[in-house]
Amino acid sequence: MARPTPLSGFPELLPQARLVEQHVLDVLREVFELHGFSSIETRAVEPLSVLLRKGEIDKEVYGVRRLQADSEDKDELALHFDLTVPFARYVTENAGHLQFPFRRYQVQKVWRGERPQEGRYREFTQADIDVVDRGTLAVHHDADMARVMGEALSRLPLPGVTLQVNNRRLVEGFYRGLGLEGDVLTGSIGATMRAVDKLDKVGARGVADLLAQAGLTQDQVDGALGLAQVRAGAGDLVESVRALGVTHELLDQGLEELLAVLTAVDDLPADRVAVVADLSVARGLDYYTGTVYETRMRGWESLGSICSGGRYDALADDGRDVYPGVGISLGVTRAIIPLLGRGAVRASRPTPTAVVVAVADEGHRRDADRVAQQLRARGVATEVSPTAAKFGKQIRFADRRGVPFVWFPSLDAADGHQVKDIRSGEQVPADPASWLPPAADLRPTVVSEDPAQLP
Amino acid sequence: MARPTPLSGFPELLPQARLVEQHVLDVLREVFELHGFSSIETRAVEPLSVLLRKGEIDKEVYGVRRLQADSEDKDELALHFDLTVPFARYVTENAGHLQFPFRRYQVQKVWRGERPQEGRYREFTQADIDVVDRGTLAVHHDADMARVMGEALSRLPLPGVTLQVNNRRLVEGFYRGLGLEGDVLTGSIGATMRAVDKLDKVGARGVADLLAQAGLTQDQVDGALGLAQVRAGAGDLVESVRALGVTHELLDQGLEELLAVLTAVDDLPADRVAVVADLSVARGLDYYTGTVYETRMRGWESLGSICSGGRYDALADDGRDVYPGVGISLGVTRAIIPLLGRGAVRASRPTPTAVVVAVADEGHRRDADRVAQQLRARGVATEVSPTAAKFGKQIRFADRRGVPFVWFPSLDAADGHQVKDIRSGEQVPADPASWLPPAADLRPTVVSEDPAQLP
Repeated sequence: MARPTPLSGFPELLPQARLVEQHVLDVLREVFELHGFSSIETRAVEPLSVLLRKGEIDKEVYGVRRLQADSEDKDELALHFDLTVPFARYVTENAGHLQFPFRRYQVQKVWRGERPQEGRYREFTQADIDVVDRGTLAVHHDADMARVMGEALSRLPLPGVTLQVNNRRLVEGFYRGLGLEGDVLTGSIGATMRAVDKLDKVGARGVADLLAQAGLTQDQVDGALGLAQVRAGAGDLVESVRALGVTHELLDQGLEELLAVLTAVDDLPADRVAVVADLSVARGLDYYTGTVYETRMRGWESLGSICSGGRYDALADDGRDVYPGVGISLGVTRAIIPLLGRGAVRASRPTPTAVVVAVADEGHRRDADRVAQQLRARGVATEVSPTAAKFGKQIRFADRRGVPFVWFPSLDAADGHQVKDIRSGEQVPADPASWLPPAADLRPTVVSEDPAQLP
Repeated sequence: MARPTPLSGFPELLPQARLVEQHVLDVLREVFELHGFSSIETRAVEPLSVLLRKGEIDKEVYGVRRLQADSEDKDELALHFDLTVPFARYVTENAGHLQFPFRRYQVQKVWRGERPQEGRYREFTQADIDVVDRGTLAVHHDADMARVMGEALSRLPLPGVTLQVNNRRLVEGFYRGLGLEGDVLTGSIGATMRAVDKLDKVGARGVADLLAQAGLTQDQVDGALGLAQVRAGAGDLVESVRALGVTHELLDQGLEELLAVLTAVDDLPADRVAVVADLSVARGLDYYTGTVYETRMRGWESLGSICSGGRYDALADDGRDVYPGVGISLGVTRAIIPLLGRGAVRASRPTPTAVVVAVADEGHRRDADRVAQQLRARGVATEVSPTAAKFGKQIRFADRRGVPFVWFPSLDAADGHQVKDIRSGEQVPADPASWLPPAADLRPTVVSEDPAQLP
């Protein structure tokens, strides 16, 4: 077997980096469960017909087919490209067994055939929270999603983030007030939304050109760009929008909803998670109908939004009931791989092991096993030395693996045990029935550095 | 959207069942990490050429292809069907960054295009532990794998299991002593191994017929069947094999290795995990070279082995070094879905939520939010009632979701809070800054019933 080469766009982590990813997933799970979200997982594949319903994404989809398919394999299958479409399908399939409003989190890999680049992968992990109800879904859930994901982000070893919130009803109402027509996906309103979505890429002048091509008057172009430039908090949102001089009933409704979200999240730690109304956030081609979210890491804005979502008035529809939902999705891989790559976050050691128990000779391996079991019974991750080489070599084995302690079992009396901190060299007597390492050494910890201080 | 139907062979769990799966995965992770195994994950896809190297499995493999593939997509990709082949590839790809012997655990989904039936799925989760070294791997690791997985199994909410161990060197040596030739995969030795592997399905007479067809003499048939009937512990293994009157150097070596495994695991709780030498265990077409393992749940033997593995003298080979390994793989989905389906194991409630905070009216929702945050800060999973309906309706909401407590915030004074256990109806004053539910109610627990008592 020749040495294989990595597949572009399919990142794999070494054990030390994987510890960072595990820590991130642990924090997400803890926060989501504290807020009453249930975990679900859906199968990796969906019928192609389910996946393609959403629009023009067929070129990003990986088809899946048994190499020796037979006539029983009627379904054309493909790997899911997000967790929203499978969740909508799960809700309609299991509606009779779920209690609504249903709060779920889902952390799984998804696959997209995009061209790989930093922050864009072909296989990556997403962590989604959504709440879905039958019939109608109260608007306070929109604030709740921002608060829960904000709390999770504030506890992750990431740079501080800005959570940008907008509301499509507000934008659509504003555009109607300008005299545009259609809806968030069609007509001059849809065209304007898609153009404003390119603000980051083509700048205000580029957007103005696109809008003029779409047939907007200069006043309409100025109005749309004016709205897209609004950045505000709960204190100045209404004033900032009113100053643009446009009125419409739908604008009022959207403004009220957006203000409610901003007001409800004012207890998040602003240095970690700043929540702002950013009226340029449009979320492109997605079917969001109210609140929309994006999130950027400070100092890492070039990665784009790492955490996005919004409200669907019809997340799912089984022909009898409609299921509105609101949710937000964190791109775990997209956020952490670049940080890992530049050393902005790392685990304190590459292995869970805190102690290596030395083996004097193979005849004493079982004694070492017994010491290890005593330590493990108190939650201390322990390995027994794989060889009975000279102790210096066993210590070097532990050192190479980043393990802080080596235990030397007593060969005769019960009280002859010693443990060595191989970083300081300090070696002391210890009792396998009671010894514990310092709390900071018990498990690998995750160390985050301020990315602003990186070269 | 019409109500979708499940895909056969791609099981999905409702939230209450998922809690059982999460508990199982948590226990596995804890035990594996206590024993110093590092977590890794590999990508879901491998080049088809890597997957097909192992043998006749192409009809079970799912090919993967971008629907709009272009000339840059040179690799033919497929979903991995186990975690051993990807791990071997990962080891050779990253050998320069790993410390050997390298202990890793890996818990991921795998995909096989097999015909679905109970205990056989097209998508399922496996939990693997392996240790791999460069050059040579000491035999005490074979016992270690059995001990670690045995400890994990003993702590899972499963029926008791029998971990059956055999050794292919023992079997091959015995067959050589009978005058057979070839090796574990070829010649009359390979043919005999494959025939004996069918003992469960075709019985002793069926195996005897197969062996006679393969050209074995009656004495050889009797010898092979005699060996396959040996079940022994550390105390009577050597005697039982010697009684068959066959001698060979390789038999002696295998017998010594097998005895070492049995002896080293004698501290497992036998009522939960009985470890026995079962000399009929052959592991079919796999490339194992020494120790092999299978595991059956008592009362659920029809599911087949839920946990299997063995030693590869060449798990991987990068053209410069050879990497021997030994490992064992638990079929998580295969073990728990049948138990869930028959109610032999379940979670105590369907949601992480321990408390629902009632909302007197929408104007007091923020007060309810603050109480919820105080409870969450002490690790109590809490939801705020989605509506400000009459309290009776809010209590029924909690009840339907299996949530044990409803909190009624004080509307004025700080000391007017009350909490109700909705199972007993008892309602008492409580302080949101200090109240905790009984430990048994803090999180959902997993309840296992003795499957022998099921109908």
